[in-house]
Amino acid sequence: MAAKTWTFEDFVPGVTLSLGSKLVMADEVIAFAQEFDPQPMHLDEEAGKASILGGLAASGWHTCAMFMRMLCDAYLLDSSSQGSPGIDQVRWKQPVLVGDLLTGTSLVQSKRLSKSRTDIGLISFRHQLQNQRGQTVLELENTGMFRTRETAQ
Amino acid sequence: MAAKTWTFEDFVPGVTLSLGSKLVMADEVIAFAQEFDPQPMHLDEEAGKASILGGLAASGWHTCAMFMRMLCDAYLLDSSSQGSPGIDQVRWKQPVLVGDLLTGTSLVQSKRLSKSRTDIGLISFRHQLQNQRGQTVLELENTGMFRTRETAQ
Repeated sequence: MAAKTWTFEDFVPGVTLSLGSKLVMADEVIAFAQEFDPQPMHLDEEAGKASILGGLAASGWHTCAMFMRMLCDAYLLDSSSQGSPGIDQVRWKQPVLVGDLLTGTSLVQSKRLSKSRTDIGLISFRHQLQNQRGQTVLELENTGMFRTRETAQ
Repeated sequence: MAAKTWTFEDFVPGVTLSLGSKLVMADEVIAFAQEFDPQPMHLDEEAGKASILGGLAASGWHTCAMFMRMLCDAYLLDSSSQGSPGIDQVRWKQPVLVGDLLTGTSLVQSKRLSKSRTDIGLISFRHQLQNQRGQTVLELENTGMFRTRETAQ
């Protein structure tokens, strides 16, 4: 297996990593909603306009899933990630509407080696997605587990 | 529009609501991972077995999405829900593996009327999913906004 670019040592507290961009597509919004969150404002333009979201809007969970794909493509798939125990404080701050262009960042908040496993380090992140109007649409925090450089495949 | 069964008044603190059940299917796990979380342990049986998850395992975000569909079918689609500002403390406590049969509950923790809008009430929930071995696989909390009986369509 090729060496990974991102291991525990490579994440530096205070540094902000770019998550690239993602255009929100109507067919993807509707397909996700049909499978996982079939509320009318996620399925239909008119129902979306009539709701507090103001248009055909992605399910909040779809926004999280789009964020995850951006994270994977930006650095996670090329890292020594060993997963995450969970997520804190997911905040859907603005509607995510069809046609929005999302961009994202991961701020490295802090890091420490695991107390129980010397091959693993814990990184605390604060992630955000913004739309093309500069509004933050998603905020969340998590702690990721990463192998150290010496122990990464 | 037909009257909804569940409005703010119908959620009683201390009551636990059933979320029904969901069988975790290999094709659904792989399709979600291909689109949103293409890490090897979510795409391939052998990679899953070689990982700390121990088998072909759903993305944590897929588990959240399956939870959302269970919530929709159990009561949300037949409620006066006005959405949720976010989610607190998502915890992926055990791997969710292909073939698992998930069941779920929503505990109504507390409720109050909105201070700014008299037609809206806030309900605090604690949700859980368990597998067929009785292990809790997902825990999360959120506050949902619901119209009052008088103002619900």
